[in-house]
Amino acid sequence: MTAKGCLYGLSLGPGDPGLITRRAWELLRGKGLWAYPVRHWGGDSFALDIVRRAGLAVPDSAMPLCFPMTHQPEVLARHWLAAAQTILSSLERGQDVCFLVEGDASTYSTFGHLARTLRALDADIPVAVIAGVTSYQAAAAHLGLALADADDRLAILPAGYGIHTIDHLLDEFDALVLLKVKPLLADIIDLLERRGLLAHARFVEKVGCPEERTVHDLRQIRDERVNYLSLLLVHNPQRPKGEVARGCRKRTPQGEKHP
Amino acid sequence: MTAKGCLYGLSLGPGDPGLITRRAWELLRGKGLWAYPVRHWGGDSFALDIVRRAGLAVPDSAMPLCFPMTHQPEVLARHWLAAAQTILSSLERGQDVCFLVEGDASTYSTFGHLARTLRALDADIPVAVIAGVTSYQAAAAHLGLALADADDRLAILPAGYGIHTIDHLLDEFDALVLLKVKPLLADIIDLLERRGLLAHARFVEKVGCPEERTVHDLRQIRDERVNYLSLLLVHNPQRPKGEVARGCRKRTPQGEKHP
Repeated sequence: MTAKGCLYGLSLGPGDPGLITRRAWELLRGKGLWAYPVRHWGGDSFALDIVRRAGLAVPDSAMPLCFPMTHQPEVLARHWLAAAQTILSSLERGQDVCFLVEGDASTYSTFGHLARTLRALDADIPVAVIAGVTSYQAAAAHLGLALADADDRLAILPAGYGIHTIDHLLDEFDALVLLKVKPLLADIIDLLERRGLLAHARFVEKVGCPEERTVHDLRQIRDERVNYLSLLLVHNPQRPKGEVARGCRKRTPQGEKHP
Repeated sequence: MTAKGCLYGLSLGPGDPGLITRRAWELLRGKGLWAYPVRHWGGDSFALDIVRRAGLAVPDSAMPLCFPMTHQPEVLARHWLAAAQTILSSLERGQDVCFLVEGDASTYSTFGHLARTLRALDADIPVAVIAGVTSYQAAAAHLGLALADADDRLAILPAGYGIHTIDHLLDEFDALVLLKVKPLLADIIDLLERRGLLAHARFVEKVGCPEERTVHDLRQIRDERVNYLSLLLVHNPQRPKGEVARGCRKRTPQGEKHP
């Protein structure tokens, strides 16, 4: 019996081909079939663009898998199933499949759904994830800002939870990464202005791509329609930190340093 | 006048040499001088270990820089200054310097302090950060777990903020990454048991290193003294999410979807 192929969740990083890891690079140049996500049939694939910009030719055998932009559970489940079925026969024949993922395959990625759906069809197929650099790490690096330092707390969330949530989390965290800021951008900028945090916020769009854009004064983009692949990094240097238990410091009887 | 050398914050990822990025690899094999952190003179360097395990020989010119494990601001500032002074003359002679960083140079790293101190000595020295994979992304990949999915909120913080804080943040976040868990491990495990979340928590130590350890049943390590380079990933699948504004959905007049 042939051993089954492995499904790789191949993280490519957020856009700069230099941020592809050595392991991902080795797999890209290996014998695995490529599969890549598109939002509609015949559409572009951002993941494939990264690999192309890295100088690799896309093999004829590379398979697009369609994951539409929707939150309807039954539509998503149908596409996950169709995608899993598309790659299943190759895997069962012993062929490895590399699913190309922008950013990191464990962080806001379709890969987990694809892998879970596939394992429901055939539980014996091995799955491996190659971790990658996220967009917000690349954005922080590009800006020369620390995402988190020493005892900092860092929160990452879609901005769509709303202004009240963001306002509240700014009291609890030293840094926020706000994703999918498009629908609330003006309101977030107003909030940051009210709180005196505009100087500690940066906007980054398509980091590491040729069309990358970094904005230091957010008021310039208050009324813009920004790209889907954009984020805000916000620091709150005013947050009072309280005490932090460290190293092997003795615990109080309740095991609590910061009630 | 010679152009000044560039200080690179060279992220190496958390331990697996396969997670070094192509750009970091290219720099490691280039002409830049290496500098690497040690906790005391003559001590080991975890960053250097990663590079050694990648198969690279450490050049004779590689410079250890000492950053002791302390939180005393004046001790830290003195060591940052000494480290900056050590590399300054090379940079001013036009020599690039690659400071090797475990994990990601923007995420709980000494690099930001070194760069800031150096720029205070000579504001003209260019600084560039090469982003890397963090330990918690590598841990999630290794476990085959999503760190964050769809509308998830993710928080990353040192566990030392205490049980009350962790308990509270479990209500607000779908996933927590708890770092430096050593001093509070037993209390955290008790909390997770009380909340019925033990099955959704994993412990990972030195991910990607030969001595990596993954623990699925945290009760096994409740009374252990664990390594400094260890973390907990905790998911709270019970968190009620509320509504999330997405895409271009029309905003309410107050710009608020989730008050």
